[in-house]
Amino acid sequence: MEMNFNQHISGQFNADLEAIRNHMMGMGGLVERQVANAIEAICSGDTRVADDVIRREDEVDKMEVNIDHECTQILVRRQPAASDLRMVLAVSRVVRDLERIGDEASKIAIHTLEVADNSSNQLCQQAMRYMGAEVVKMISGALDAFARHDVDGAIDVVRNDKLVDQQYASALRELITYMMEDPRSIGQAINILWILRAIERIGDHARNISEQVIYLVKGTDVRHSSLTEIEEQANKD
Amino acid sequence: MEMNFNQHISGQFNADLEAIRNHMMGMGGLVERQVANAIEAICSGDTRVADDVIRREDEVDKMEVNIDHECTQILVRRQPAASDLRMVLAVSRVVRDLERIGDEASKIAIHTLEVADNSSNQLCQQAMRYMGAEVVKMISGALDAFARHDVDGAIDVVRNDKLVDQQYASALRELITYMMEDPRSIGQAINILWILRAIERIGDHARNISEQVIYLVKGTDVRHSSLTEIEEQANKD
Repeated sequence: MEMNFNQHISGQFNADLEAIRNHMMGMGGLVERQVANAIEAICSGDTRVADDVIRREDEVDKMEVNIDHECTQILVRRQPAASDLRMVLAVSRVVRDLERIGDEASKIAIHTLEVADNSSNQLCQQAMRYMGAEVVKMISGALDAFARHDVDGAIDVVRNDKLVDQQYASALRELITYMMEDPRSIGQAINILWILRAIERIGDHARNISEQVIYLVKGTDVRHSSLTEIEEQANKD
Repeated sequence: MEMNFNQHISGQFNADLEAIRNHMMGMGGLVERQVANAIEAICSGDTRVADDVIRREDEVDKMEVNIDHECTQILVRRQPAASDLRMVLAVSRVVRDLERIGDEASKIAIHTLEVADNSSNQLCQQAMRYMGAEVVKMISGALDAFARHDVDGAIDVVRNDKLVDQQYASALRELITYMMEDPRSIGQAINILWILRAIERIGDHARNISEQVIYLVKGTDVRHSSLTEIEEQANKD
Protein backbone atom coordinates (compact mmCIF):
# COMPACT_ATOMS: atom_id res chain seq x y z
CA MET A 1 0.00 0.00 0.00
CA GLU A 2 2.73 2.43 0.99
CA MET A 3 4.66 1.34 -2.05
CA ASN A 4 1.72 2.25 -4.27
CA PHE A 5 1.37 5.55 -2.51
CA ASN A 6 5.03 6.34 -3.13
CA GLN A 7 4.76 5.28 -6.73
CA HIS A 8 1.77 7.50 -7.10
CA ILE A 9 3.65 10.45 -5.60
CA SER A 10 6.66 9.78 -7.76
CA GLY A 11 4.44 9.48 -10.85
CA GLN A 12 2.99 12.91 -10.13
CA PHE A 13 6.46 14.27 -9.50
CA ASN A 14 7.69 13.03 -12.86
CA ALA A 15 4.62 14.51 -14.48
CA ASP A 16 5.43 17.88 -12.83
CA LEU A 17 9.02 17.77 -14.07
CA GLU A 18 7.82 16.78 -17.54
CA ALA A 19 5.36 19.68 -17.47
CA ILE A 20 7.90 22.42 -16.69
CA ARG A 21 10.24 21.03 -19.33
CA ASN A 22 7.45 21.00 -21.92
CA HIS A 23 6.32 24.49 -20.98
CA MET A 24 9.90 25.71 -21.26
CA MET A 25 10.16 24.13 -24.71
CA GLY A 26 6.88 25.76 -25.72
CA MET A 27 8.19 29.12 -24.54
CA GLY A 28 11.43 28.45 -26.40
CA GLY A 29 9.49 27.80 -29.61
CA LEU A 30 7.59 31.06 -29.29
CA VAL A 31 10.75 33.03 -28.50
CA GLU A 32 12.58 31.50 -31.46
CA ARG A 33 9.71 32.57 -33.76
CA GLN A 34 9.75 36.05 -32.22
CA VAL A 35 13.42 36.44 -33.08
CA ALA A 36 13.00 35.00 -36.60
CA ASN A 37 10.05 37.35 -37.21
CA ALA A 38 11.91 40.37 -35.85
CA ILE A 39 14.81 39.68 -38.22
CA GLU A 40 12.35 39.13 -41.08
CA ALA A 41 10.69 42.46 -40.24
CA ILE A 42 13.92 44.44 -40.28
CA CYS A 43 15.13 42.83 -43.51
CA SER A 44 11.83 43.13 -45.40
CA GLY A 45 10.68 46.38 -43.77
CA ASP A 46 7.29 44.75 -43.10
CA THR A 47 5.87 46.80 -40.22
CA ARG A 48 2.94 44.41 -39.62
CA VAL A 49 5.36 41.66 -38.71
CA ALA A 50 7.17 44.07 -36.38
CA ASP A 51 3.86 45.09 -34.75
CA ASP A 52 3.04 41.43 -34.21
CA VAL A 53 6.37 40.77 -32.46
CA ILE A 54 5.81 43.73 -30.12
CA ARG A 55 2.25 42.63 -29.37
CA ARG A 56 3.30 39.08 -28.48
CA GLU A 57 6.01 40.12 -26.01
CA ASP A 58 3.40 40.06 -23.24
CA GLU A 59 2.80 36.36 -23.90
CA VAL A 60 6.50 35.65 -23.44
CA ASP A 61 6.57 37.62 -20.18
CA LYS A 62 3.55 35.74 -18.83
CA MET A 63 5.11 32.42 -19.74
CA GLU A 64 8.23 33.30 -17.74
CA VAL A 65 6.23 34.22 -14.64
CA ASN A 66 4.04 31.09 -14.92
CA ILE A 67 6.86 28.63 -15.48
CA ASP A 68 8.93 30.20 -12.72
CA HIS A 69 5.91 29.84 -10.44
CA GLU A 70 5.57 26.15 -11.41
CA CYS A 71 9.26 25.66 -10.58
CA THR A 72 8.79 27.24 -7.15
CA GLN A 73 5.77 25.01 -6.49
CA ILE A 74 7.82 21.92 -7.30
CA LEU A 75 10.59 23.09 -4.96
CA VAL A 76 8.06 23.57 -2.16
CA ARG A 77 5.88 20.50 -2.66
CA ARG A 78 8.28 17.88 -4.00
CA GLN A 79 11.59 18.91 -2.47
CA PRO A 80 13.56 17.49 -5.37
CA ALA A 81 17.18 16.38 -4.94
CA ALA A 82 20.18 15.70 -7.17
CA SER A 83 19.40 15.63 -10.90
CA ASP A 84 15.72 16.49 -10.34
CA LEU A 85 16.71 19.61 -8.45
CA ARG A 86 19.16 20.53 -11.18
CA MET A 87 16.37 20.15 -13.75
CA VAL A 88 14.10 22.55 -11.83
CA LEU A 89 16.88 25.12 -11.29
CA ALA A 90 18.06 24.84 -14.90
CA VAL A 91 14.52 25.32 -16.26
CA SER A 92 14.02 28.40 -14.08
CA ARG A 93 17.31 29.91 -15.33
CA VAL A 94 16.58 29.04 -18.96
CA VAL A 95 13.17 30.73 -18.91
CA ARG A 96 14.84 33.88 -17.59
CA ASP A 97 17.20 33.90 -20.57
CA LEU A 98 14.32 33.13 -22.93
CA GLU A 99 12.43 36.09 -21.54
CA ARG A 100 15.43 38.34 -22.18
CA ILE A 101 15.71 37.02 -25.72
CA GLY A 102 12.02 37.89 -26.17
CA ASP A 103 12.85 41.37 -24.87
CA GLU A 104 15.63 41.81 -27.41
CA ALA A 105 13.35 40.57 -30.24
CA SER A 106 10.83 43.18 -29.25
CA LYS A 107 13.56 45.89 -29.18
CA ILE A 108 14.55 44.88 -32.73
CA ALA A 109 10.91 45.22 -33.79
CA ILE A 110 10.62 48.68 -32.17
CA HIS A 111 13.74 49.96 -33.93
CA THR A 112 12.45 48.42 -37.18
CA LEU A 113 9.40 50.68 -36.95
CA GLU A 114 11.71 53.64 -36.36
CA VAL A 115 13.76 53.01 -39.51
CA ALA A 116 10.79 52.00 -41.70
CA ASP A 117 10.29 54.09 -44.87
CA ASN A 118 13.88 55.15 -44.67
CA SER A 119 16.74 54.15 -46.89
CA SER A 120 19.04 53.47 -43.94
CA ASN A 121 17.14 50.29 -43.14
CA GLN A 122 19.24 48.88 -45.97
CA LEU A 123 22.35 49.45 -43.83
CA CYS A 124 24.15 46.34 -42.65
CA GLN A 125 21.34 44.25 -44.18
CA GLN A 126 23.65 41.39 -44.97
CA ALA A 127 25.21 41.36 -41.49
CA MET A 128 21.79 41.50 -39.81
CA ARG A 129 20.41 38.71 -41.97
CA TYR A 130 23.45 36.54 -41.42
CA MET A 131 23.82 37.14 -37.67
CA GLY A 132 20.05 36.87 -37.28
CA ALA A 133 19.92 33.45 -38.94
CA GLU A 134 22.86 32.38 -36.80
CA VAL A 135 21.30 33.31 -33.45
CA VAL A 136 17.96 31.71 -34.38
CA LYS A 137 19.91 28.49 -35.04
CA MET A 138 21.72 28.94 -31.71
CA ILE A 139 18.45 29.23 -29.76
CA SER A 140 17.04 26.09 -31.33
CA GLY A 141 20.40 24.32 -30.93
CA ALA A 142 20.55 25.19 -27.23
CA LEU A 143 16.97 24.00 -26.62
CA ASP A 144 17.56 20.77 -28.57
CA ALA A 145 20.72 20.17 -26.55
CA PHE A 146 18.70 20.72 -23.36
CA ALA A 147 15.99 18.27 -24.46
CA ARG A 148 18.52 15.62 -25.43
CA HIS A 149 21.00 16.24 -22.55
CA ASP A 150 23.53 16.76 -25.33
CA VAL A 151 26.72 18.37 -24.02
CA ASP A 152 28.43 18.43 -27.43
CA GLY A 153 25.47 20.24 -28.95
CA ALA A 154 25.63 22.77 -26.12
CA ILE A 155 29.33 23.40 -26.77
CA ASP A 156 28.61 24.00 -30.46
CA VAL A 157 26.33 26.84 -29.43
CA VAL A 158 29.05 28.38 -27.24
CA ARG A 159 31.41 28.14 -30.19
CA ASN A 160 28.93 29.81 -32.56
CA ASP A 161 28.53 32.67 -30.07
CA LYS A 162 32.18 33.57 -30.69
CA LEU A 163 31.51 33.77 -34.43
CA VAL A 164 28.51 36.03 -33.89
CA ASP A 165 30.64 38.30 -31.69
CA GLN A 166 33.17 38.63 -34.52
CA GLN A 167 30.47 39.39 -37.08
CA TYR A 168 29.06 42.00 -34.73
CA ALA A 169 32.43 43.73 -34.36
CA SER A 170 32.88 43.86 -38.12
CA ALA A 171 29.33 45.13 -38.76
CA LEU A 172 29.97 47.85 -36.18
CA ARG A 173 33.05 49.03 -38.06
CA GLU A 174 31.06 49.10 -41.31
CA LEU A 175 28.33 51.15 -39.64
CA ILE A 176 30.76 53.69 -38.16
CA THR A 177 32.39 54.18 -41.56
CA TYR A 178 28.96 54.79 -43.06
CA MET A 179 28.06 57.33 -40.37
CA MET A 180 31.26 59.26 -40.99
CA GLU A 181 30.57 59.39 -44.71
CA ASP A 182 26.97 60.53 -44.29
CA PRO A 183 26.54 62.33 -40.95
CA ARG A 184 22.89 63.20 -41.69
CA SER A 185 22.06 59.50 -41.39
CA ILE A 186 23.45 59.18 -37.87
CA GLY A 187 20.11 59.26 -36.08
CA GLN A 188 18.83 56.39 -38.23
CA ALA A 189 22.12 54.53 -38.14
CA ILE A 190 21.96 54.48 -34.32
CA ASN A 191 18.78 52.42 -34.68
CA ILE A 192 20.71 49.89 -36.75
CA LEU A 193 23.38 49.95 -34.04
CA TRP A 194 20.81 48.96 -31.39
CA ILE A 195 19.51 46.20 -33.65
CA LEU A 196 22.99 44.75 -34.18
CA ARG A 197 23.60 44.93 -30.44
CA ALA A 198 20.27 43.19 -29.70
CA ILE A 199 21.16 40.34 -32.07
CA GLU A 200 24.56 39.99 -30.42
CA ARG A 201 22.91 39.88 -26.97
CA ILE A 202 20.52 37.15 -28.17
CA GLY A 203 23.60 35.08 -28.99
CA ASP A 204 24.87 35.62 -25.42
CA HIS A 205 21.57 34.41 -23.96
CA ALA A 206 21.58 31.32 -26.20
CA ARG A 207 25.06 30.65 -24.84
CA ASN A 208 23.71 30.98 -21.28
CA ILE A 209 21.03 28.39 -22.08
CA SER A 210 23.72 26.02 -23.32
CA GLU A 211 25.64 26.49 -20.09
CA GLN A 212 22.58 25.17 -18.24
CA VAL A 213 22.75 21.98 -20.34
CA ILE A 214 26.23 21.40 -18.93
CA TYR A 215 24.95 22.13 -15.40
CA LEU A 216 22.10 19.68 -15.96
CA VAL A 217 24.26 16.85 -17.27
CA LYS A 218 27.58 17.40 -15.48
CA GLY A 219 26.42 19.25 -12.37
CA THR A 220 29.04 21.98 -12.86
CA ASP A 221 28.27 25.68 -12.90
CA VAL A 222 30.14 26.93 -16.01
CA ARG A 223 28.77 30.47 -16.05
CA HIS A 224 31.63 32.95 -16.52
CA SER A 225 33.85 30.16 -17.88
CA SER A 226 35.75 30.37 -21.14
CA LEU A 227 35.10 28.04 -24.08
CA THR A 228 38.23 26.05 -23.19
CA GLU A 229 37.17 25.68 -19.55
CA ILE A 230 33.71 24.54 -20.68
CA GLU A 231 35.21 21.97 -23.03
CA GLU A 232 37.36 20.65 -20.16
CA GLN A 233 34.32 20.29 -17.90
CA ALA A 234 32.41 18.51 -20.67
CA ASN A 235 35.16 15.92 -21.09
CA LYS A 236 35.12 15.02 -17.38
CA ASP A 237 33.15 11.93 -16.40
CA MET B 1 14.87 16.02 23.39
CA GLU B 2 13.12 16.16 20.05
CA MET B 3 12.19 19.73 20.81
CA ASN B 4 15.84 20.60 21.35
CA PHE B 5 16.77 18.82 18.16
CA ASN B 6 14.21 20.83 16.21
CA GLN B 7 15.36 24.04 17.82
CA HIS B 8 18.89 23.15 16.89
CA ILE B 9 17.90 22.46 13.28
CA SER B 10 15.90 25.64 13.13
CA GLY B 11 18.79 27.61 14.62
CA GLN B 12 21.09 26.33 11.88
CA PHE B 13 18.45 27.08 9.29
CA ASN B 14 18.17 30.68 10.46
CA ALA B 15 21.94 30.94 10.44
CA ASP B 16 21.97 29.68 6.83
CA LEU B 17 19.35 32.22 5.79
CA GLU B 18 21.24 34.94 7.62
CA ALA B 19 24.43 33.88 5.85
CA ILE B 20 23.06 34.12 2.29
CA ARG B 21 21.50 37.49 3.10
CA ASN B 22 24.80 38.77 4.49
CA HIS B 23 26.79 37.43 1.55
CA MET B 24 24.32 39.06 -0.83
CA MET B 25 24.76 42.37 1.02
CA GLY B 26 28.54 41.99 0.84
CA MET B 27 28.32 41.37 -2.88
CA GLY B 28 25.98 44.36 -3.17
CA GLY B 29 28.53 46.57 -1.43
CA LEU B 30 31.30 45.47 -3.79
CA VAL B 31 29.10 45.95 -6.87
CA GLU B 32 28.06 49.42 -5.69
CA ARG B 33 31.74 50.39 -5.31
CA GLN B 34 32.50 48.95 -8.76
CA VAL B 35 29.84 51.17 -10.31
CA ALA B 36 30.93 54.25 -8.34
CA ASN B 37 34.57 53.64 -9.35
CA ALA B 38 33.66 53.07 -13.01
CA ILE B 39 31.81 56.41 -13.07
CA GLU B 40 34.72 58.06 -11.28
CA ALA B 41 37.12 56.60 -13.86
CA ILE B 42 35.17 57.88 -16.85
CA CYS B 43 34.70 61.36 -15.33
CA SER B 44 38.29 61.78 -14.15
CA GLY B 45 39.93 59.81 -16.97
CA ASP B 46 41.92 57.87 -14.33
CA THR B 47 42.88 54.66 -16.13
CA ARG B 48 44.21 52.99 -12.95
CA VAL B 49 40.75 53.13 -11.41
CA ALA B 50 39.31 51.66 -14.63
CA ASP B 51 41.91 48.86 -14.60
CA ASP B 52 41.00 48.09 -11.00
CA VAL B 53 37.28 47.79 -11.85
CA ILE B 54 38.05 45.39 -14.72
CA ARG B 55 40.36 43.33 -12.49
CA ARG B 56 37.75 42.95 -9.74
CA GLU B 57 34.96 41.73 -12.02
CA ASP B 58 36.13 38.17 -11.40
CA GLU B 59 35.44 38.58 -7.69
CA VAL B 60 31.87 39.63 -8.44
CA ASP B 61 31.38 36.63 -10.74
CA LYS B 62 32.70 34.24 -8.10
CA MET B 63 30.42 35.72 -5.48
CA GLU B 64 27.40 35.09 -7.70
CA VAL B 65 28.32 31.45 -8.27
CA ASN B 66 29.06 30.90 -4.56
CA ILE B 67 25.91 32.55 -3.22
CA ASP B 68 23.76 30.81 -5.81
CA HIS B 69 25.34 27.52 -4.71
CA GLU B 70 24.54 28.33 -1.05
CA CYS B 71 20.94 29.02 -2.05
CA THR B 72 20.69 25.67 -3.84
CA GLN B 73 22.13 23.90 -0.78
CA ILE B 74 19.49 25.49 1.45
CA LEU B 75 16.74 24.41 -0.96
CA VAL B 76 18.05 20.83 -0.88
CA ARG B 77 18.86 20.49 2.80
CA ARG B 78 16.30 22.68 4.53
CA GLN B 79 13.34 22.55 2.16
CA PRO B 80 12.19 26.02 3.17
CA ALA B 81 8.56 27.05 2.80
CA ALA B 82 6.56 30.29 2.64
CA SER B 83 8.57 33.40 3.54
CA ASP B 84 11.81 31.44 4.02
CA LEU B 85 11.50 30.04 0.51
CA ARG B 86 10.79 33.51 -0.84
CA MET B 87 13.94 34.76 0.89
CA VAL B 88 16.09 32.09 -0.77
CA LEU B 89 14.56 32.65 -4.22
CA ALA B 90 14.77 36.43 -3.89
CA VAL B 91 18.44 36.28 -2.86
CA SER B 92 19.26 34.05 -5.80
CA ARG B 93 17.53 36.46 -8.22
CA VAL B 94 19.14 39.54 -6.64
CA VAL B 95 22.66 38.12 -6.97
CA ARG B 96 21.98 37.52 -10.67
CA ASP B 97 21.08 41.18 -11.13
CA LEU B 98 24.09 42.23 -9.03
CA GLU B 99 26.33 40.18 -11.28
CA ARG B 100 24.89 41.91 -14.34
CA ILE B 101 25.45 45.31 -12.72
CA GLY B 102 29.07 44.25 -12.14
CA ASP B 103 29.25 43.34 -15.81
CA GLU B 104 27.99 46.77 -16.87
CA ALA B 105 30.47 48.47 -14.50
CA SER B 106 33.26 46.56 -16.13
CA LYS B 107 31.99 47.52 -19.62
CA ILE B 108 32.05 51.18 -18.55
CA ALA B 109 35.66 50.74 -17.41
CA ILE B 110 36.65 49.07 -20.72
CA HIS B 111 35.14 51.91 -22.76
CA THR B 112 36.83 54.41 -20.43
CA LEU B 113 40.19 52.97 -21.44
CA GLU B 114 39.17 53.32 -25.08
CA VAL B 115 38.36 57.02 -24.81
CA ALA B 116 41.27 57.89 -22.48
CA ASP B 117 43.66 60.55 -23.80
CA ASN B 118 40.96 61.79 -26.10
CA SER B 119 38.97 64.97 -25.89
CA SER B 120 35.67 63.17 -26.50
CA ASN B 121 35.76 61.71 -23.00
CA GLN B 122 34.48 65.17 -22.07
CA LEU B 123 31.28 64.41 -24.00
CA CYS B 124 28.11 64.07 -21.95
CA GLN B 125 30.24 64.40 -18.80
CA GLN B 126 27.45 66.07 -16.88
CA ALA B 127 24.87 63.46 -17.90
CA MET B 128 27.21 60.59 -17.04
CA ARG B 129 28.09 62.08 -13.67
CA TYR B 130 24.46 62.78 -12.83
CA MET B 131 23.03 59.48 -14.06
CA GLY B 132 25.96 57.63 -12.50
CA ALA B 133 25.34 59.16 -9.07
CA GLU B 134 21.65 58.35 -9.44
CA VAL B 135 22.12 54.64 -10.22
CA VAL B 136 24.66 54.20 -7.40
CA LYS B 137 22.00 55.63 -5.06
CA MET B 138 19.42 53.27 -6.60
CA ILE B 139 21.59 50.19 -5.95
CA SER B 140 22.13 51.12 -2.31
CA GLY B 141 18.45 52.10 -1.97
CA ALA B 142 17.32 48.74 -3.36
CA LEU B 143 19.65 46.79 -1.05
CA ASP B 144 18.60 48.86 1.99
CA ALA B 145 14.96 48.25 1.12
CA PHE B 146 15.72 44.52 0.89
CA ALA B 147 17.45 44.50 4.29
CA ARG B 148 14.62 46.41 5.96
CA HIS B 149 11.74 44.73 4.07
CA ASP B 150 10.83 48.27 3.07
CA VAL B 151 8.27 48.27 0.24
CA ASP B 152 8.09 52.08 0.04
CA GLY B 153 11.85 52.32 -0.32
CA ALA B 154 11.67 49.74 -3.11
CA ILE B 155 9.02 51.76 -4.94
CA ASP B 156 11.21 54.88 -4.72
CA VAL B 157 13.87 53.00 -6.66
CA VAL B 158 11.36 52.02 -9.38
CA ARG B 159 10.35 55.69 -9.60
CA ASN B 160 13.97 56.85 -9.90
CA ASP B 161 14.50 54.38 -12.73
CA LYS B 162 11.99 56.35 -14.79
CA LEU B 163 14.01 59.53 -14.22
CA VAL B 164 17.23 57.84 -15.29
CA ASP B 165 15.50 56.60 -18.46
CA GLN B 166 14.53 60.20 -19.28
CA GLN B 167 18.05 61.49 -18.63
CA TYR B 168 19.37 58.74 -20.86
CA ALA B 169 17.07 59.70 -23.74
CA SER B 170 18.12 63.32 -23.49
CA ALA B 171 21.86 62.50 -23.27
CA LEU B 172 21.43 60.34 -26.38
CA ARG B 173 19.97 63.29 -28.31
CA GLU B 174 22.86 65.48 -27.19
CA LEU B 175 25.36 62.86 -28.34
CA ILE B 176 23.76 62.40 -31.76
CA THR B 177 23.82 66.16 -32.35
CA TYR B 178 27.49 66.20 -31.45
CA MET B 179 28.25 63.33 -33.82
CA MET B 180 26.52 65.13 -36.68
CA GLU B 181 28.52 68.28 -36.02
CA ASP B 182 31.83 66.48 -35.83
CA PRO B 183 31.69 63.20 -37.79
CA ARG B 184 35.39 62.48 -37.17
CA SER B 185 34.55 61.92 -33.50
CA ILE B 186 31.95 59.23 -34.22
CA GLY B 187 34.17 56.26 -33.32
CA GLN B 188 34.91 57.80 -29.92
CA ALA B 189 31.36 59.01 -29.41
CA ILE B 190 30.10 55.45 -29.86
CA ASN B 191 32.12 54.55 -26.74
CA ILE B 192 30.25 57.24 -24.83
CA LEU B 193 27.02 55.80 -26.22
CA TRP B 194 27.84 52.37 -24.77
CA ILE B 195 28.70 53.96 -21.43
CA LEU B 196 25.38 55.82 -21.27
CA ARG B 197 23.58 52.62 -22.20
CA ALA B 198 25.44 50.67 -19.50
CA ILE B 199 24.45 53.24 -16.85
CA GLU B 200 20.84 53.06 -17.99
CA ARG B 201 20.94 49.24 -17.79
CA ILE B 202 22.33 49.43 -14.24
CA GLY B 203 19.21 51.42 -13.33
CA ASP B 204 17.04 48.63 -14.79
CA HIS B 205 18.83 46.02 -12.68
CA ALA B 206 18.43 48.12 -9.52
CA ARG B 207 14.75 48.24 -10.34
CA ASN B 208 14.71 44.43 -10.68
CA ILE B 209 16.26 44.14 -7.21
CA SER B 210 13.51 46.37 -5.82
CA GLU B 211 10.89 44.15 -7.40
CA GLN B 212 12.29 41.27 -5.34
CA VAL B 213 11.67 43.30 -2.16
CA ILE B 214 7.98 43.37 -3.09
CA TYR B 215 8.06 39.62 -3.80
CA LEU B 216 9.72 39.05 -0.43
CA VAL B 217 7.27 41.14 1.59
CA LYS B 218 4.01 40.79 -0.38
CA GLY B 219 4.57 37.43 -2.10
CA THR B 220 3.61 38.89 -5.51
CA ASP B 221 5.73 38.57 -8.62
CA VAL B 222 5.77 42.13 -10.03
CA ARG B 223 8.31 41.60 -12.79
CA HIS B 224 7.03 43.10 -16.06
CA SER B 225 4.56 45.27 -14.08
CA SER B 226 4.22 49.02 -14.51
CA LEU B 227 4.95 51.48 -11.71
CA THR B 228 1.21 51.93 -11.13
CA GLU B 229 0.64 48.17 -10.90
CA ILE B 230 3.52 47.86 -8.45
CA GLU B 231 2.11 50.66 -6.30
CA GLU B 232 -1.24 48.86 -6.25
CA GLN B 233 0.35 45.60 -5.13
CA ALA B 234 2.27 47.44 -2.41
CA ASN B 235 -0.90 48.91 -0.98
CA LYS B 236 -2.57 45.51 -0.65
CA ASP B 237 -2.48 43.87 2.76
